[in-house]
Amino acid sequence: MAKELKDLTKRADNYSQWYNDLVVKADLAEQSAVRGCMVIKPYGYAIWEKMQQQLDRMFKETGHQNAYFPLLIPKSFLSREAEHVEGFAKECAVVTHHRLKNDPAGNGVIVDPEAKLEEELIIRPTSETIIWNTYRNWIHSYRDLPILVNQWANVMRWEMRTRMFLRTAEFLWQEGHTAHATYDEAMEEAVKMLNVYADFAEKYMAVPVIKGVKSANERFAGAIETFTIEAMMQDGKALQSGTSHFLGQNFAKAFDVTFVNKENKPEYVWATSWGVSTRLMGALIMTHSDDNGLVLPPHLAPIQVVIVPIYKNSDQLAEISKTVLPIVDQLKSMGISVKYDDAENRRPGFKFADYELKGVPVRLAIGARDIENGTVEVMRRDTLEKSEQKLEGIAGYVADLLEKIQQNIFDKALKHRQSMTRTVETYDEFKTEIEKGGFILAHWDGTPETEEKIKEETKATIRCIPLDGDKTPGVCMVTGKPSKQRVIFARNY
Amino acid sequence: MAKELKDLTKRADNYSQWYNDLVVKADLAEQSAVRGCMVIKPYGYAIWEKMQQQLDRMFKETGHQNAYFPLLIPKSFLSREAEHVEGFAKECAVVTHHRLKNDPAGNGVIVDPEAKLEEELIIRPTSETIIWNTYRNWIHSYRDLPILVNQWANVMRWEMRTRMFLRTAEFLWQEGHTAHATYDEAMEEAVKMLNVYADFAEKYMAVPVIKGVKSANERFAGAIETFTIEAMMQDGKALQSGTSHFLGQNFAKAFDVTFVNKENKPEYVWATSWGVSTRLMGALIMTHSDDNGLVLPPHLAPIQVVIVPIYKNSDQLAEISKTVLPIVDQLKSMGISVKYDDAENRRPGFKFADYELKGVPVRLAIGARDIENGTVEVMRRDTLEKSEQKLEGIAGYVADLLEKIQQNIFDKALKHRQSMTRTVETYDEFKTEIEKGGFILAHWDGTPETEEKIKEETKATIRCIPLDGDKTPGVCMVTGKPSKQRVIFARNY
Repeated sequence: MAKELKDLTKRADNYSQWYNDLVVKADLAEQSAVRGCMVIKPYGYAIWEKMQQQLDRMFKETGHQNAYFPLLIPKSFLSREAEHVEGFAKECAVVTHHRLKNDPAGNGVIVDPEAKLEEELIIRPTSETIIWNTYRNWIHSYRDLPILVNQWANVMRWEMRTRMFLRTAEFLWQEGHTAHATYDEAMEEAVKMLNVYADFAEKYMAVPVIKGVKSANERFAGAIETFTIEAMMQDGKALQSGTSHFLGQNFAKAFDVTFVNKENKPEYVWATSWGVSTRLMGALIMTHSDDNGLVLPPHLAPIQVVIVPIYKNSDQLAEISKTVLPIVDQLKSMGISVKYDDAENRRPGFKFADYELKGVPVRLAIGARDIENGTVEVMRRDTLEKSEQKLEGIAGYVADLLEKIQQNIFDKALKHRQSMTRTVETYDEFKTEIEKGGFILAHWDGTPETEEKIKEETKATIRCIPLDGDKTPGVCMVTGKPSKQRVIFARNY
Repeated sequence: MAKELKDLTKRADNYSQWYNDLVVKADLAEQSAVRGCMVIKPYGYAIWEKMQQQLDRMFKETGHQNAYFPLLIPKSFLSREAEHVEGFAKECAVVTHHRLKNDPAGNGVIVDPEAKLEEELIIRPTSETIIWNTYRNWIHSYRDLPILVNQWANVMRWEMRTRMFLRTAEFLWQEGHTAHATYDEAMEEAVKMLNVYADFAEKYMAVPVIKGVKSANERFAGAIETFTIEAMMQDGKALQSGTSHFLGQNFAKAFDVTFVNKENKPEYVWATSWGVSTRLMGALIMTHSDDNGLVLPPHLAPIQVVIVPIYKNSDQLAEISKTVLPIVDQLKSMGISVKYDDAENRRPGFKFADYELKGVPVRLAIGARDIENGTVEVMRRDTLEKSEQKLEGIAGYVADLLEKIQQNIFDKALKHRQSMTRTVETYDEFKTEIEKGGFILAHWDGTPETEEKIKEETKATIRCIPLDGDKTPGVCMVTGKPSKQRVIFARNY
């Protein structure tokens, strides 16, 4: 473990390599034998499960139900919505055959040419098409609306450059697909789910986010409006962390989904879709972690507290355990997940380094002398500070500390974002500032052409048009044309 | 709703049609636009989620962790284990290309011939191959063992004849894949998970099962021993409901996974795998339901209790609600999921029929006169019996009733199975009895040839060699050769 820690690249040396190292060394994920696809290891999956549980609860509290739609989508479905096909149908996994057979030459198995599908099937890159094709039969009258459905699923996009969690060919996500009787109701839903995502990011992941609207260039293929939460990583780059789309009647028109409204007239159905993915794991890692390893927010840590006994012999261990086990029970009864690591085959120093690498928020170390003194050593992972605390009332102390850590890492990330967010007036100033990383607030004339020019010249894109904050109009830094409000530019993952 | 109920085929008329009708009418699932793939609708998915939660808890209590492995498997991996490829590699979805492009002729999109994969990828029919290829890097020493991993995932098998939940091209399941240092430990794990499945089936699904070992003909492709739980449906046919495989060192050898044992010698790793799928939904439906619709076991019902107010005007409704809402709170505080259906756009009779169709275990109906009398009408779904109960203490009564229903439907299913299980001595007797359905206990000489002959002549297979019960030896009903014990024959799903 000491060796593994030593091998972890420092952020200052190579941020990107630090991230890749950490994902592997903290046992979160690894590359698989299939190009661009990762294996999510048990520890990484346990964090994802915590995210899922929380999000699923929030979806259900807002009236949504889960369902499951097919993995495969007929090729022709993708062509129905003109913009959608441009955005999604190009780089995807295509199923063309349904059988293998023994190679007559004796080399394993080959594709059976006689088992060619009449129509190719695509592994879903997102499910609007298959779902709206299904909704056509579910919706007849306004009484059938709204439909508030979510799906937890795997999806595939044949990305050229992949990075674990951030951009993988296959990833896990949830996709909500809702159907409504009115524009207003669908718009309200899209905004509601944006707020659910923002709440989740800030309260559970401890990742501060900016809520905003995407420019046309960055909009979801087929959406009228894409709402987004944007987070800033430690290296100053932006990470789009969740999107909620107001789809208007585009998919209803493409799949002929109409309903009879209260006035007894047929009308196309209004739609939203919204999703977050295992990409959130990347946001979590890159927001809080340090050169010693992961720093996990207590609200999502699979192990919130680890207790390591320091002992010379089995009598001492027995004595320590007698004190520790009631504390373990007490913490558990408070809903805190705790691990008492009394394994004999690893020395305390190894355990310490391992749990630091794994980002366990609070570590208690307790030896024979502590028992005598009624004390325990407490280490908090976020600041690495150690302190001696009284054993009496330790469970309450730990519960408070977990909340403090949760708040502290959020505050730290927020402060970092604030310190790396600047306002610029001129394009020259912009070009200088964007090199330093972070978010740049600048005026833009609202055209795709200007955004494209900025992207080509500086590699920065508009992350969002913020919903909150300063709405003062101005003039575009590039063209001098009128601008309604400042927008956020950044380089991004 | 009344109409929908009327449309439900009676079991006696056409059991198979009754099942298909029920799956659709109770809003559990429907066929999708993709051949053999179903859409699992919210109500059906809610039952599956309940199953998942319970199973997941049981897996974790037995020391397992979840992880996630790639959806796609390189074609060459399937050929590594000789028997495995025969069993699984044939009917499967093959990904050959990774890009579509606009059709120059203007007809939507076509497969881009330039985006042909070097090696075809198969959508996982099961994940032994990709997982054991991964485990090779995880396992070096006996200290790395055991690995106790489970995956919740979708899989595809290109089945020719599909039926919703029972046999679909894509289905949802969990697959456990464990790695062990010794034969004994792996065998113990395989049996342990068989017992977890049997407990789950009996205590949560209220489906009695027989635990047994598969004959060689029915064994998982690549396994040394396949353990199974077999249930009997109402029509007397068997449904294999879960399997646990002792894989020996087959996959370790195929993927070269060795470890250094305590004696410092290299050795191949021992393996198990085990899975249950959305097929359990089929078992659940076909074991308990009746001509009025679903009958759900209280332990898995998404709604355990529905309360329907009977009122003439909004004053009456307000009065009833004043009494009902505290009962709702009380039931919820007892962990019982309850729905108070005060919707005004559906009459009580419609609601009654709908909740019967959906299998809600307990229905309370309460009107103005009930409030005066301090009573409530209670209907239990399993027997359709109505009774008048006192409002005072109703929550406790309902909690007891739910447990009674759970026990009653299990007892009923067990009695049915017992009544349709017979012992035969001669093959002639067997041929007569198998036509009547049910399980036939008969002696068999242990050879695949004899089993094959019986299957060809009677369409019955050996469901399992039971682990419990009578072990008296005898002579094979077909060949007269020695038989170690009676085995269970049945026609099956």
